[in-house]
Amino acid sequence: MHTEARIERALALALARSEARGAPPRLATAVRHAVMPGGARIRPQLCLAVAAACGDSDPALADAAGAAIELMHCASLVHDDLPCFDDAPLRRGRPSVHAAYGERCAVLAGDALIVMAFETLALGAAASPLRLPGMMAVLSLRVGMPHGIVAGQAWECEDWVALPDYQRAKTGSLFAAATELGALAAGADASSWRGFGQWLGEAYQVADDIRDAAGDAAQIGKPTGRDRVLGRPSAVAEFGLTGALTHFERLVERAGEAVPEGPGARTLRRLLHAESERLLPASVRATADAMAAVQVA
Amino acid sequence: MHTEARIERALALALARSEARGAPPRLATAVRHAVMPGGARIRPQLCLAVAAACGDSDPALADAAGAAIELMHCASLVHDDLPCFDDAPLRRGRPSVHAAYGERCAVLAGDALIVMAFETLALGAAASPLRLPGMMAVLSLRVGMPHGIVAGQAWECEDWVALPDYQRAKTGSLFAAATELGALAAGADASSWRGFGQWLGEAYQVADDIRDAAGDAAQIGKPTGRDRVLGRPSAVAEFGLTGALTHFERLVERAGEAVPEGPGARTLRRLLHAESERLLPASVRATADAMAAVQVA
Repeated sequence: MHTEARIERALALALARSEARGAPPRLATAVRHAVMPGGARIRPQLCLAVAAACGDSDPALADAAGAAIELMHCASLVHDDLPCFDDAPLRRGRPSVHAAYGERCAVLAGDALIVMAFETLALGAAASPLRLPGMMAVLSLRVGMPHGIVAGQAWECEDWVALPDYQRAKTGSLFAAATELGALAAGADASSWRGFGQWLGEAYQVADDIRDAAGDAAQIGKPTGRDRVLGRPSAVAEFGLTGALTHFERLVERAGEAVPEGPGARTLRRLLHAESERLLPASVRATADAMAAVQVA
Repeated sequence: MHTEARIERALALALARSEARGAPPRLATAVRHAVMPGGARIRPQLCLAVAAACGDSDPALADAAGAAIELMHCASLVHDDLPCFDDAPLRRGRPSVHAAYGERCAVLAGDALIVMAFETLALGAAASPLRLPGMMAVLSLRVGMPHGIVAGQAWECEDWVALPDYQRAKTGSLFAAATELGALAAGADASSWRGFGQWLGEAYQVADDIRDAAGDAAQIGKPTGRDRVLGRPSAVAEFGLTGALTHFERLVERAGEAVPEGPGARTLRRLLHAESERLLPASVRATADAMAAVQVA
């Protein structure tokens, strides 16, 4: 079965469990809205690609790990879009969860998705229960306090933050979890896989900052220029557009260097290359270059 | 070590982990505010009492389970107090988390506490890793969708809800988790312990409804009369004060009957009796009776 199909099947199963008889219907619909149809599903793809590179000895566990990470990502989007944070009306070109179902359902949908992520991981570990404690510990560490994506988001509530710390926690950590859990699901060591995910995740966040400053709202499915309006730390605010583009290229390079040598290394570097093109399409790079030139002149 | 000390130690350890170097300080303080000083810690006490009745073969796992349940409870209080739900300025006689640290920190503190609960459980399972998958599944089921406390809270967003379904999910389910996880932590079967927790939890919610209608704000540490103001489903709205008091007594009786016979049964029934007195002190019962008499007259 193709990677995409494995991911969608694992997510569909998790959603079906949450929609069993007796579930509050409005929240059930809100949770589904947050997960389907998805975005690029890059994190679970990364997770499955690393599991494959490590031998994929328990594909059901790898699928569960990929789905768990995607559910955590969806939870973070729902809560980040709330009125008290980004107050985003759109996500993936559709109304955000709070815009469609109200703030209360959005808070609860995020909560439900976090729980669903851990549940999915636990249920997927039936054949390899001894791998579960380590995978749970990694997932918690990369999502919660003190350095996970929740902590990353919390830096927006502080008066001062170092940009690398913020981006490492806010986005890098869940990408690191994707590669680490992929390895652990296959019974391999996680530590040698962390760097690849971490660097790619930071590159992803920098690309997001560049698209926010130079992208087209229709193309990326959400409003642009929000970092500036909300005064959020961003690579563009810190380095300027040209500096941010250079920083992005450097991070992608580092991610490539961090791929452990082995049978799957070429496939993973190809995935990295394709993802870097998808993150910053030529059109956005051209716009960014043009805007940077105007700013210099 | 006494039960109370075991619980506080497990919670303190979880908080210390979340406050490690590099944690966003404002969120770290908000998370601590949500957990310390605590309320009655009835859920973890229940968990440890059941673990003891089942032989307490892995006390570290029982402690972790009790702490995990309490952290989930704290998370639900923080999110339920948010402006979009109860908009509660006070909790346990102090400012609620959103009142003290703002709405954004309150959303993230709840998220962090949910993650911390699962993390605490996973780290506590070092000596009995094979018990972890089942415990994770129970904790997820009793917290998330379709029937856990998150689902229970979501019934407040629906146009219509059957009161028993609402109260069973909103409060009963986490009490059920407390008894079930206590049994599982000791390597015992969970199913025979579910009823005890479930009935006690429903009694707890009915007592909360009665205190909301007839209690003294200063005594219970939060504003009263909120169910009526917010139009929330409540046992008092459904059955009147007298009916709610009768319902409470009946639920406590059922909880007592549901305690499995065995060496710990007497201790558990004593705990139930003490808890029922604490939930509805004689003064509140007298006030409720007097108010009911006035309403009838």
